[in-house]
Amino acid sequence: MSLVQTTVVTGTGDSIIAVAMKLPTDPAENLAALIRCPSVTPTEGGALSALETMLKPLGFAVDRPTFSEDGTPDVENLYARRSGNGPHLMFAGHTDVVPIGDEAAWKHPPFSAAIDNGEMYGRGAVDMKGGIACFIAAVARHVEAHGGPKGSISLLITGDEEGPSINGTVKLLEWAASRGEKWDASLVGEPTNPDALGDMIKIGRRGSISATITVNGRQGHAAYPHLADNPVRGLMTLVDALLNPVFDKGTKDFQPSNLEVTTFDVGNPATNVIPAKATASFNIRFNDSWTAETLQAEIHNRLDKASGRKKYRKGRKEPVEFELVWRDRPSHVFLTRNDKLIDALAGSIKRVTGRKPKLSTTGGTSDARFIKDYCPVVEFGLVGKTMHMVDERVPLAELEQLTQVYQQFLADWFG
Amino acid sequence: MSLVQTTVVTGTGDSIIAVAMKLPTDPAENLAALIRCPSVTPTEGGALSALETMLKPLGFAVDRPTFSEDGTPDVENLYARRSGNGPHLMFAGHTDVVPIGDEAAWKHPPFSAAIDNGEMYGRGAVDMKGGIACFIAAVARHVEAHGGPKGSISLLITGDEEGPSINGTVKLLEWAASRGEKWDASLVGEPTNPDALGDMIKIGRRGSISATITVNGRQGHAAYPHLADNPVRGLMTLVDALLNPVFDKGTKDFQPSNLEVTTFDVGNPATNVIPAKATASFNIRFNDSWTAETLQAEIHNRLDKASGRKKYRKGRKEPVEFELVWRDRPSHVFLTRNDKLIDALAGSIKRVTGRKPKLSTTGGTSDARFIKDYCPVVEFGLVGKTMHMVDERVPLAELEQLTQVYQQFLADWFG
Repeated sequence: MSLVQTTVVTGTGDSIIAVAMKLPTDPAENLAALIRCPSVTPTEGGALSALETMLKPLGFAVDRPTFSEDGTPDVENLYARRSGNGPHLMFAGHTDVVPIGDEAAWKHPPFSAAIDNGEMYGRGAVDMKGGIACFIAAVARHVEAHGGPKGSISLLITGDEEGPSINGTVKLLEWAASRGEKWDASLVGEPTNPDALGDMIKIGRRGSISATITVNGRQGHAAYPHLADNPVRGLMTLVDALLNPVFDKGTKDFQPSNLEVTTFDVGNPATNVIPAKATASFNIRFNDSWTAETLQAEIHNRLDKASGRKKYRKGRKEPVEFELVWRDRPSHVFLTRNDKLIDALAGSIKRVTGRKPKLSTTGGTSDARFIKDYCPVVEFGLVGKTMHMVDERVPLAELEQLTQVYQQFLADWFG
Repeated sequence: MSLVQTTVVTGTGDSIIAVAMKLPTDPAENLAALIRCPSVTPTEGGALSALETMLKPLGFAVDRPTFSEDGTPDVENLYARRSGNGPHLMFAGHTDVVPIGDEAAWKHPPFSAAIDNGEMYGRGAVDMKGGIACFIAAVARHVEAHGGPKGSISLLITGDEEGPSINGTVKLLEWAASRGEKWDASLVGEPTNPDALGDMIKIGRRGSISATITVNGRQGHAAYPHLADNPVRGLMTLVDALLNPVFDKGTKDFQPSNLEVTTFDVGNPATNVIPAKATASFNIRFNDSWTAETLQAEIHNRLDKASGRKKYRKGRKEPVEFELVWRDRPSHVFLTRNDKLIDALAGSIKRVTGRKPKLSTTGGTSDARFIKDYCPVVEFGLVGKTMHMVDERVPLAELEQLTQVYQQFLADWFG
């Protein structure tokens, strides 16, 4: 980073003042400042204040709303906007990080931002303080080079992405929208590349629903099964109906929907006793063949049909008695179809890295599932290999490359 | 019971002495004495001493061996023999009882032997102090009427039938056999009748084997199932192979063999995590189509085959990795084919009760499974309805009827 004389646009863009100011053009320096804030979710840890310090010289108006809800920790968030005449691009991300795990196992302390063999170590290096650091560096370079984009840029940064996601992005979007904020496109800086920078853009995400099934049988002695009703048989009948047939074979843009039985429990220690109750939980990651609602209806339909079947039931005539409880809120599936946004990002990646990124909808959920209700959203960030692991780290060269990608994207999208 | 002048044969039967003695001819009085001994397994509680008091005047030589084994409670047992010239009949049973449960729920205290509306209340009334009380009354009447049978009678009574069955019948049989005891037939006095005295003789029992299967998968995130290996899928594949097809359709003398999954456990609370391990236990009650060994081989064969199958495996090529551990010792199946024994018992029942008993092999295991290695064995006792329950009780009329059945059986079998 250099000390430069530059033009900074503040407020509405009407008044232009020339100041001598250090702009955050070095992604490594930005990232080191962020890593040194121990912002293990939901703690702010100084990370949002560090961001504020970087953003203000670039002409951003910064807000720091805190949200709370009974039974969940209060969470600090940040919304920063640099206004201009033209379209509005929102960069979204989070400064909270997952716990460090076994600190003794780290090669360098997890909040030290130590550089070793060209790599910077630290919790959040790739997920996703690194992405934020690069975006800010890209904006700083853009401002330095062009005096500001032909439009508005905002950063929507939460401290609750790795936690329950209740007092974070959802409420921050509502809060901003209620103040009249409107966005034309959003870029989420989560690590999206499996192996090398430029591998993959996420242009959508599968949905996710979870539930628990309980089957109540009739306890009895293993020697007198006709007097009992083994709930394991009943539950296996129901789970079998969820596993077969598969829900779909995938779509043009998505993998096949997939169900995993996450647990199956009885807890009966006695070898000669038929138990009274059995429960199983499952999670489904589903594609755009379904909505959360149509898939939930399919599940109910399969269970209702199977509960009357004789499979594993040995001639019983009464249906399996079961209870189904949906857990958590469903995550809805989405797919972004916005050529301008996707082409600008893919083109910038190709130009900087030489790679043609895969337009993917794989993996888990992200905060993009909330943003898609406000504007088209895509995700591109660092390589995810070390995220959530001990010795999370990022090559300095990759930080520079991602900064260049974001810089090119700003130039192209604002055009 | 009456005070009578009778002839008692003691010891080897050589010396005959006339004594004035009260013989235990009244089953209700015998049972009351036994119920008042709180012999909750494995406590002797005075019950074997009460038996000894009843048996000595009838000319029985009584031994009281105690057996022990590391990790199990010491258990007192009783073996009594009244020797004569001719065949040797063994009556087998137990004086230990199951716990009383909620004492406050009993209409009469569980060790009071209270009589109410023609029924005697108490833990063990039907299972099976009642059977022993009736058999002793029958022997007493037989001795009173005939001066002793044309052969030997022994009682093999354990205090460890309701417990782990380690320091009881098995060791008592070995102990007696090592002293040269040989038996021609055995009658077990367990409650065998579902509804009315005379319903059912047990002429055999199914075998029983139990095992636990553990499947080790690979933990992972529910959104990345291709990186994980869900052990629930693997375990369901294996359990499915045990439940289908059924092992057999039953035989002339036995019900179909039946498998019950007694537990199935994972213990994973996280909705987005594919678990690392799943276990299931099962118990099989099997008929004379199998031995414990051939059935265990069948189980191994089914599991080995199924572990390579793709059911629930979504295209995985590697087999399910599982571990099978057999639990407890197997109980072997047996069927008694001894017309003299069965006909004498069935004939006596018909004559006294007017009922033709069903020759059954249903229900759980009993100590008969150990006795069948020494001599033919059948089981007949009281009506089992209230056994193991609060307010266990027996009608006095039923005690008298069972005594008459046993008395008739002694007359017919010794002929």
